[in-house]
Order: sequence, then structure tokens, then C-alpha cells
Amino acid sequence: MKVMVIGAGGTVGRAIVDELGRDHDIIRVGKTRGDVQADLTDDASVQQLFTQTGKVDAIISATGSVHFGPLSEMTSAQFNQGLQDKLMGQVRLVLIGQHYLNRGGSFTLTTGILTQHPIRTGVNATAVNAALEGFVLAAANELPGQRINAVSPTVLTEALDKYGPFFPGFESAAASRVALAYRRSLEGIDNGKVYRVW
Amino acid sequence: MKVMVIGAGGTVGRAIVDELGRDHDIIRVGKTRGDVQADLTDDASVQQLFTQTGKVDAIISATGSVHFGPLSEMTSAQFNQGLQDKLMGQVRLVLIGQHYLNRGGSFTLTTGILTQHPIRTGVNATAVNAALEGFVLAAANELPGQRINAVSPTVLTEALDKYGPFFPGFESAAASRVALAYRRSLEGIDNGKVYRVW
Ligand SMILES: NC(=O)c1ccc[n+]([C@@H]2O[C@H](COP(=O)([O-])OP(=O)(O)OC[C@H]3O[C@@H](n4cnc5c(N)ncnc54)[C@H](OP(=O)(O)O)[C@@H]3O)[C@@H](O)[C@H]2O)c1
Ligand SMILES: NC(=O)c1ccc[n+]([C@@H]2O[C@H](COP(=O)([O-])OP(=O)(O)OC[C@H]3O[C@@H](n4cnc5c(N)ncnc54)[C@H](OP(=O)(O)O)[C@@H]3O)[C@@H](O)[C@H]2O)c1
Repeated sequence: MKVMVIGAGGTVGRAIVDELGRDHDIIRVGKTRGDVQADLTDDASVQQLFTQTGKVDAIISATGSVHFGPLSEMTSAQFNQGLQDKLMGQVRLVLIGQHYLNRGGSFTLTTGILTQHPIRTGVNATAVNAALEGFVLAAANELPGQRINAVSPTVLTEALDKYGPFFPGFESAAASRVALAYRRSLEGIDNGKVYRVW
Repeated sequence: MKVMVIGAGGTVGRAIVDELGRDHDIIRVGKTRGDVQADLTDDASVQQLFTQTGKVDAIISATGSVHFGPLSEMTSAQFNQGLQDKLMGQVRLVLIGQHYLNRGGSFTLTTGILTQHPIRTGVNATAVNAALEGFVLAAANELPGQRINAVSPTVLTEALDKYGPFFPGFESAAASRVALAYRRSLEGIDNGKVYRVW
């Protein structure tokens, strides 16, 4: 299959490419790296991405940042940053990408364990992830002939040096194990599902 | 208690005021009606609201609109409307309101049955409600001395003439029954809870 991976150069994205690259044609997309560049926070850029690549069989997103900080000091502008990046970025990819995804094709988005298990300073992350899981649940009923799922990883073992202190006592998962969930979404029959890798 | 109700003139809000007005002092807030006017989509307006009222013992929100429309035609600007209104409106109320809520006080926000049960054209509603439920779950850990919950009503019996066709086969709930959940949040001990009235 012709599989587009957005965030292909990231910690999660690299593992997805390693896993799926063995038996699929991967189009690596990043903001600054990859085969093609695109900015998910910008309608015109996402439109341009699909004009360049043409139709694909699967669209996988492993990208998006949120705001971390104490609730007592958080501003609505900061909260909105996470909405515009991780949430609207992936939603925009689906809104535009649905018109470039072949019949039988699938979307796979990325949320995270914070949806159900908040951490200190992570209110924005939990809200954004929860919104994405709601989006997947509802969109699954309105994409006839296409499927949509999400992968919700715990903290990656490969990211422990960066994020470890934020996840005290959380079990990490190897990126290669997280990548399996993207294959399950891609090649399985599920629709509207969130694969928790934790 | 001194209880601020935002959206006090609406279908849900009127029932809350009827229920709680019997034994609490209510400050009715609306965009165009009520004792005080404020626009939850605007930082300065919410700041001005609390400057006018001073500290309160409880803040209840029964407001917020989302975008309804088929996913196949939805634009990111339309999706963002619901994020900015029902989601950011209530989040902004908490971000600013936390500094004007007395110790021991509570927030109660409003989500809806669409969080778990999507309806046709309701993808934005499901995502927005899910984000709010995530927000409540996480914020409950970061508001020391204060509590936060949400009420998730099914369609109100009083709103069936307007919304009935969108909710085929859904059981409605009387506004007076929905209002009880706000009392439970206000006078109970729960924190980080979503009261489903369905
Ligand atoms: N790492 C973890 O432990 C972990 C755990 C749970 C969930 N997650 C979630 O997994 C996703 C990816 O995380 P990660 O750690 O792999 O991130 P990462 O290593 O920082 O990589 C981010 C990737 O996204 C691309 N990107 C960033 N902004 C973009 C934009 N506006 N438009 C298009 N592409 C953009 C980057 O492209 P360029 O490199 O080309 O600039 C990069 O390839 C995030 O949603 C994160 O919350 C991560
Ligand atoms: N009705 C239902 O069956 C139902 C079911 C489940 C969930 N809900 C949820 O309950 C909430 C209230 O619904 P409703 O049917 O009661 O709404 P409604 O009858 O349309 O009333 C909306 C109220 O919110 C106020 N308002 C609107 N925009 C505002 C803003 N930007 N800033 C401050 N106040 C604003 C209005 O003020 P003014 O009147 O002063 O202009 C009005 O009092 C919504 O979140 C809705 O999704 C409703």
C-alpha cells in the first residue's frame, strides 16, 4: 500500500516507518525533514501536500505538540496552542485528506496515555488527547468506505531521557512495540478504535 | 452560597436557577440577558465579569455552541468554531475564574451525551465534549482547595421540538432532573467527575 506517514522523522514516526517500510511504500512527511514537507497547522500547506502526492491508501499521523504548564498560571492563549497544533493539525489532516484517501483506506492518528491518566502540568495534553479520541469515535461513522483509528502510547522507552521525570512510575513501551498498533490499524478491520499501548 | 450561573437564561440554565435559587444566592450571567453580561469567548470580558462580581463560592457554566454539519464538507475553520466557543469558553472561565473562586468552591461545566454517543453531523460536538471531560479529569488534580465536575445531559425534554430529529430513539430528560446533577456537584464532595444524566 501507498502509506503517508506525517511526523516520519520523529521518535514515534521513525518506528512506524521501520515497521511498515518492510512491506509498504512509505511517503515520509515532516515539517522540515522527509520526502515531502508540510505544516499541519496550515490549510494551504496540507492541501498542497495532497496535490503533490496524489491519492494514497493510508494516512498515518504521529505528530503534534501541546502546552505543558501549571493550571494556576495557564492562559487561554497557551491552552489554545495545543488545540491548534496537536488537535486541529490532525483534524485538518482528516478533513482535507478524506478527499485523497482511496476507498478502503484508513487514517491512524496519535493520542497518548494522558487522555485517561493526567500528569502534573498536563491539563492541556489530556484535553487535546481526549478531543482526538472523541473525534475518532464520531468520525468513524461519517467516513463511508474509509476507516479511522488512533494509537495511544504510554511514554516511549526511547523518550525516557526527555520525558521520564514527567511520568513517575509509568511503564514505558519500546517504540517498536508501539509501531505494531499502527500496523493493526492499517491492515485490520477496526474502525473508531483507540489502541492503548499501555 | 454565592453561585454564579453562566447561561442562566438558557434551557439548561433556567432549570439550574430554579433548582438552586431556592437556597442559594444566584448571580445570573448571560451574553445578552441576566444580572451581568459577559462573553466567554473573550478574555477581557471574563476578567471584567469577575472584577464586577468579586469572589464567589461556585461557578456553574451551562453554555457553549458547536458546529453541526457533515464531515465530508467540514472545514477546519468550522471545526475550530466549536473549539473556540463551547470548549475554550468554558476553559477560559476556569483559567480566569480559579482566581475568584473561594476556597472550598466548585466549578461545574456542561458537556453532553454526544461525548460517548455520536449523532449524524455531530463530529465537532463529540470532540468538544470529550475535550471538556478530559479537561475536568485533569484539572481536578490541579485546583487545590477547589473542585471541578461536569454534567453530561442527554437531550432535554424541553428542547425536543428543536433537537428531537437529531436524537432518534434517544430518551430525553426533564430539565428539572438534569438540574439535580448541578446540585450534586455543588453540594457534594466529588472532584473530577462527569455526571451523566442518561
Ligand atoms: N514520544 C513519546 O514518548 C510519546 C508518547 C505518547 C504519545 N506521543 C505522541 O506522539 C506524537 C509524536 O511524538 P514524538 O515524540 O514522535 O515527536 P517528535 O519526535 O518531536 O517528532 C515530531 C514529528 O512531527 C513533525 N512535525 C512537527 N510539527 C509539525 C507540523 N506542524 N506539521 C507537520 N509535521 C510536524 C516533525 O517534523 P520534522 O522533524 O520534519 O520537523 C517530526 O517528524 C505526538 O502527538 C506525541 O504527543 C509521544
Ligand atoms: N438543550 C439540550 O437539550 C442540551 C442537551 C445536552 C447538552 N446541552 C448543553 O448545555 C449547554 C446549554 O445549552 P442550552 O440548550 O441551555 O442553550 P441555550 O438555551 O441556547 O442557552 C444558551 C445560554 O448561554 C448564554 N451564552 C451563549 N453564548 C455565550 C457566550 N459567548 N458567553 C456567555 N454566555 C453565552 C446565553 O446567554 P443570553 O441568553 O444572555 O444571550 C444563554 O443564556 C450547551 O453546552 C449544550 O450543548 C444542551
